[in-house]
Amino acid sequence: MRGRSLLLDLYELTMAASYFARKVKLEATFDLFVRNLPHNRSFLVACGLQKAIRFLEDFSFGPSDIDFLKKKAIFKDDFLDYLKGLRFTGSVYALPEGTVFFPNEPILRVSAPILEAQIMESYLLNTINVATTLCSKASRVVLAAGERGVYDFSLRRTQGCSAALAASRSSYIAGCSGTSNALGSALYGIPAVGTMAHSFVMSFKSELESFRAYASTFPDNTTLLVDTYSYATGIDNAITVGRELALKGYRLKAIRLDSGDLVKISRLARVMLDKAGLSCVNIFASGNLDEYKIEKLIGKGARIDSFGVGTNMGVSSDAPYLDVIYKLSQIDDARSGAQPVMKLSEDKITYPGKKQVFRVCDKKGFYGKDIIGLEGEAVKGEPLMVNVMEKGKIKSPLPSLDKIRDFARNNISLLPARYKKLTQAESYPVSLSKGLSRLIAKVRSRAIAS
Amino acid sequence: MRGRSLLLDLYELTMAASYFARKVKLEATFDLFVRNLPHNRSFLVACGLQKAIRFLEDFSFGPSDIDFLKKKAIFKDDFLDYLKGLRFTGSVYALPEGTVFFPNEPILRVSAPILEAQIMESYLLNTINVATTLCSKASRVVLAAGERGVYDFSLRRTQGCSAALAASRSSYIAGCSGTSNALGSALYGIPAVGTMAHSFVMSFKSELESFRAYASTFPDNTTLLVDTYSYATGIDNAITVGRELALKGYRLKAIRLDSGDLVKISRLARVMLDKAGLSCVNIFASGNLDEYKIEKLIGKGARIDSFGVGTNMGVSSDAPYLDVIYKLSQIDDARSGAQPVMKLSEDKITYPGKKQVFRVCDKKGFYGKDIIGLEGEAVKGEPLMVNVMEKGKIKSPLPSLDKIRDFARNNISLLPARYKKLTQAESYPVSLSKGLSRLIAKVRSRAIAS
Repeated sequence: MRGRSLLLDLYELTMAASYFARKVKLEATFDLFVRNLPHNRSFLVACGLQKAIRFLEDFSFGPSDIDFLKKKAIFKDDFLDYLKGLRFTGSVYALPEGTVFFPNEPILRVSAPILEAQIMESYLLNTINVATTLCSKASRVVLAAGERGVYDFSLRRTQGCSAALAASRSSYIAGCSGTSNALGSALYGIPAVGTMAHSFVMSFKSELESFRAYASTFPDNTTLLVDTYSYATGIDNAITVGRELALKGYRLKAIRLDSGDLVKISRLARVMLDKAGLSCVNIFASGNLDEYKIEKLIGKGARIDSFGVGTNMGVSSDAPYLDVIYKLSQIDDARSGAQPVMKLSEDKITYPGKKQVFRVCDKKGFYGKDIIGLEGEAVKGEPLMVNVMEKGKIKSPLPSLDKIRDFARNNISLLPARYKKLTQAESYPVSLSKGLSRLIAKVRSRAIAS
Repeated sequence: MRGRSLLLDLYELTMAASYFARKVKLEATFDLFVRNLPHNRSFLVACGLQKAIRFLEDFSFGPSDIDFLKKKAIFKDDFLDYLKGLRFTGSVYALPEGTVFFPNEPILRVSAPILEAQIMESYLLNTINVATTLCSKASRVVLAAGERGVYDFSLRRTQGCSAALAASRSSYIAGCSGTSNALGSALYGIPAVGTMAHSFVMSFKSELESFRAYASTFPDNTTLLVDTYSYATGIDNAITVGRELALKGYRLKAIRLDSGDLVKISRLARVMLDKAGLSCVNIFASGNLDEYKIEKLIGKGARIDSFGVGTNMGVSSDAPYLDVIYKLSQIDDARSGAQPVMKLSEDKITYPGKKQVFRVCDKKGFYGKDIIGLEGEAVKGEPLMVNVMEKGKIKSPLPSLDKIRDFARNNISLLPARYKKLTQAESYPVSLSKGLSRLIAKVRSRAIAS
């Protein structure tokens, strides 16, 4: 397998070749941020930073990458020689993973020689986009489920293998309790969960026989799927096996509902299980769930203890990407010093300068408003962006996944409820500082005058 | 980096452990198929097969995978020893990549010892799902663009790295002309294309200077992005550089429009370029495009020669996944022979038996209707599924990417226009053969009687 350093848009290299040919030695600052919220999102949760900065630290073209570029016959040899030794030497400020954030707030701020900063563009966008999209979606599912557990079941329908791993990690950060994805569990230390498939039940002569077979292999860890033929027989057979397990001193962990009217069936199942003396058996539900359906199920009185959520969470199917961009905000050159820049094309304006995000909280610590200001500007509020890389090296030990998860849950809990309703939530207030507003006016008037 | 064999849902292993403990030696057949079309899809294009069968051929748990499973402390040592030596030994029938197909038609049919067939479930679903989703979307974009070129620009917003590679490959198979993704180009031999970013323009003292810099590095391969400050100056500056290149014997390849009213601006740009004697300069458009917007632009008389299409195509944003499932259809055991099976739960019925898809064409070769029948059944029509693996080995040399692309374009061209309108297309007729209908009735009555 090749390294991922060539995972870039070709224009990043053609621009680099042009900079190289002209010996351009500018230091550039780029902001990675989301321009607008998708429909039905009122807040986002930053995710993907660890993978992004590890990529920057490890960046290096391999011999097969250089061979490929040589064969394209558009690059000169001195440029290709330069690429062989290219490493990322810049600095990065970022919102820590798990930070709740809003449009126009930089998630990442990269300062580096322009050629380097430009070559990292697409990988950074891709990595932050998928992780943040999936983490933000999962946080809504977890909010809808309240105290009930949510498990990531998305592997089979995510957009490829790296998306599947991003889904496991991001949804765990957002507050999910585990994943069905064994590789995700192995790589990140996330609790893995597994039940059974319909094919398992169908491969035995009878449903009861299949339940007994599974229970005999995993007597203290059995969840029985009860909808292969009909719920009536399925729940009855589960009760039979639950009693048999109880006689041997084990506890049937749960039954799983995967189709039909989950309100009606879960209530019926609860009554049947309780009557049979199996009150300790949980009810687990799955089958095309998302935050909207979970909210409705709970609202209608479903008796469900935890949820397996697959495709809709793992693809963020109602908002499968973020309007995330990577834009030049400042150029520093030896002669003329710092030059903040902005893009003026009619529908796509950007903000100039090296920026910081400041959060103002109320007395109880709940989030009140954010202010996008300039780095070093005296703005009331807590600065959120942290210096995570200097001279191409990651600065401090990276936090553990559980620390990130705690941080995210704390962030989400401090966002007042009116900003995190699943539909028609209020817009969280984000404004620009005086310093940034002045800078925008200055850059704009200079651009128009020139 | 670990291998991908552990990219499975844990339940595949817990079921396997249960089969193993009971020495179950059944041969199972699973169908991988799409249950329903997403909104605004009237046909699908099969994709992802090569990656799927290479995975099957290479399948093997590594030492770190076994270590991880051992640490979970739910599997017995004899089962873990068995997993160490586990390989895929089954057979696969499949629709060749590039085949146009419809719901309920098996894309893949896997026959293998049930334990093996079950362990492959999630990887196969994931791989076929992402490739087929993206190929089917891209085929619509290509249809909308007609004779104009379409280029994959999606890397920065796909759901992770493997999705980015799937997007490059799938969209090329669907008829795109190239990709911006350098790694996709290197791995698959797809033509790579690149222009410039706004940051490049902004990093120079003036737009004109940036255009000249780029043109001096790539005099015979320059596309100028003309919307950073305003189209008026952008197109004027491009004309200046186009004339300078012409004097040196080169040709400015294109200008690129990336925002604003693309109909108005492209028509204006065409007039300005033609007046300046630069009729040979193409107009390239990008910026949040999809098949709907492209159809509209062309309908309104935009003068655009080719399109760069990113996020919406690379994420299939209006239908980011398929309702793809992997279901048991037959069990063969030494004693009782072949037993076709089906799932009867109310909203999720499946078809039993080893099936084949037959396509009936009209005299001109256009597709008329499909019939889902049984393997070996005498059904009028051409059988579409091909035997691609036997005893765990890929059968014949895999076709080149360009052969697959030709096959796909031929398939799409033979589907009558009424079935491939972008919206409100007619439903292509798919029926069940007599043999399959009889088998369904038989299995259902047996299940209800038991």
